[in-house]
Amino acid sequence: MSAQHNTRIVLASRPTGRPGAEHFRLEQVPIPQPGDGEVLIANRLLSIDPYMRGRMDAGRSYAAPVPLDGVMEGGTVAQVLVSRAPGIVPGQWFLAHGGWQTHAVVPAAQLTRRLDPDAPPLSTALGVFGMPGFTAYAGLHEIGQPKAGETLVVAAASGPVGATVGQLAKLKGVRVVGIAGGEAKRAYLEQLGFDVALDHRAADFADALGAAVPNGIDVYFENVGGAVFKAVLPHLNDFARIPVCGTVSTYNSRHQPIEGPDLLPGFMSQVLRQRLLVRGFIQRDFAALFPQFERDMRQWLLAGQIRYRETIVQGLEQAPQALADVLDGKNFGKLVVKLD
Amino acid sequence: MSAQHNTRIVLASRPTGRPGAEHFRLEQVPIPQPGDGEVLIANRLLSIDPYMRGRMDAGRSYAAPVPLDGVMEGGTVAQVLVSRAPGIVPGQWFLAHGGWQTHAVVPAAQLTRRLDPDAPPLSTALGVFGMPGFTAYAGLHEIGQPKAGETLVVAAASGPVGATVGQLAKLKGVRVVGIAGGEAKRAYLEQLGFDVALDHRAADFADALGAAVPNGIDVYFENVGGAVFKAVLPHLNDFARIPVCGTVSTYNSRHQPIEGPDLLPGFMSQVLRQRLLVRGFIQRDFAALFPQFERDMRQWLLAGQIRYRETIVQGLEQAPQALADVLDGKNFGKLVVKLD
Repeated sequence: MSAQHNTRIVLASRPTGRPGAEHFRLEQVPIPQPGDGEVLIANRLLSIDPYMRGRMDAGRSYAAPVPLDGVMEGGTVAQVLVSRAPGIVPGQWFLAHGGWQTHAVVPAAQLTRRLDPDAPPLSTALGVFGMPGFTAYAGLHEIGQPKAGETLVVAAASGPVGATVGQLAKLKGVRVVGIAGGEAKRAYLEQLGFDVALDHRAADFADALGAAVPNGIDVYFENVGGAVFKAVLPHLNDFARIPVCGTVSTYNSRHQPIEGPDLLPGFMSQVLRQRLLVRGFIQRDFAALFPQFERDMRQWLLAGQIRYRETIVQGLEQAPQALADVLDGKNFGKLVVKLD
Repeated sequence: MSAQHNTRIVLASRPTGRPGAEHFRLEQVPIPQPGDGEVLIANRLLSIDPYMRGRMDAGRSYAAPVPLDGVMEGGTVAQVLVSRAPGIVPGQWFLAHGGWQTHAVVPAAQLTRRLDPDAPPLSTALGVFGMPGFTAYAGLHEIGQPKAGETLVVAAASGPVGATVGQLAKLKGVRVVGIAGGEAKRAYLEQLGFDVALDHRAADFADALGAAVPNGIDVYFENVGGAVFKAVLPHLNDFARIPVCGTVSTYNSRHQPIEGPDLLPGFMSQVLRQRLLVRGFIQRDFAALFPQFERDMRQWLLAGQIRYRETIVQGLEQAPQALADVLDGKNFGKLVVKLD
């Protein structure tokens, strides 16, 4: 790959289930040049997130799908190479929506979050100090609203959203039960100070969950769906809150009918009887809260009150496999692709 | 039935599906006498409401079940016969939780809502000016929050909750689509000024609903569940709100598994993608709002801005059949049993 070219990955075809190598295509094209008000950036770090699976579908979602032959979308940590915009100069670091490619031309208006390359580490702008961390913060602040003494359950709890949800709740005096897949991730949750850490692959998972919530569940932070969601339902307390920021367990299958019985009528009946609050959100719905998050999280990170874990893989060509791993829960912590 | 006795209906056995005569027993017992701080009341009007089906089940709900051989619960309009409480005198009218019986002794503390026998009519304290009307008011005020120009859909729209929901939304400049069963009820919705009135029994109902909401649905006031809920889902707008105050279509079957496919995973995915808000409530969750409702609704009723319809049946012994009719949607408007 020549430094004279932009190396990029485009969507070659739309998957019906799990995405594989055949749905992507690696290309080299000339490096684009910025026009007035635009900036040429070099993407140095690329975030890999579950939402990207949704962008590969043609169906209706909260954002337009990636077009066929279009560059896969993604958040990046980028450095300015050429600027034709006032106030932005080469060498500066920004959070960008740079996509799965080494270079991008973006409007200066997109570069609203300048990054300090010293602290916290740049990669955190894609994880705990960025969109996933803000997802956790906003979902708790605006919807979950756990109070001291209440019980919160979060799944995918070793991931950048789940781990942050659990630690934020602990800071508030909440009893936290974290769920992850496999012993290594489960043990990590104990290191983070969760009250109980469960492996959803364990044969006795449903029973263990019941034993872990003797006072029921007041907040279930929903970011996986599927079997964990079903196991949670019988333990919800009246007036429980369910912020829904992901249903990753169904992303690969959401257009296929799922075997019955139909649990939806019973769920709606439970919503009524227990006065449940169920609310979907994505972090940008609460953009007004971001400055407060940035202030709070910087302090927590510098003080070591919030910890995080990352897996960094080397090379753009690893991105498709990285996404498949994230969707299968094979990664451990925030997955970042290093480009250069 | 002697005036010397209290005539009452008790729960004889718990139904598994539709309640029938065999689940109730009519009894005559001596009229109880009030102790200190208690009041003997004569129930003059008894409200029949869908929630009563839930009280016949032993299972968990937002209120304790009626015990076997216990008097069926129900709201009543009652007149004081004997008072042993300061400030309450014979002849006064109150809203009471008097149950399915001609007489009751209640603690004075329960008689918090004194009724003016002149206006609005006493029966409205069980309907539009009481719990069902307040359910409509609170669900819109606290959860649905429709704005002028938005579209609201409500089912069971000729009933005391639905008809009030639709009229309140019209007062706010909202486009209102009402759904009812049968042509007579459908036509009544047009008299109430709804923008579109649909019969859910019509063969082309799902298509007609789609045509009635060209700009999608912003608020679906859920008080029936079942087929109407399914027909609504594809038309929900992003950020739609679903106050859930009833799922009457499933009350008789909620302990039986419902044939697949399982629609719950797809629904949760829709909640996320469209950032839906789904929240169960019962009116007493919002009790602090009641004085404001009482003030507003009195004015609307006296000014004729909110209209209502009642079916009044004569005699306590009609109550079981009346409940079965309410659950089957056979009543037209608020169902009240006149006792004496």
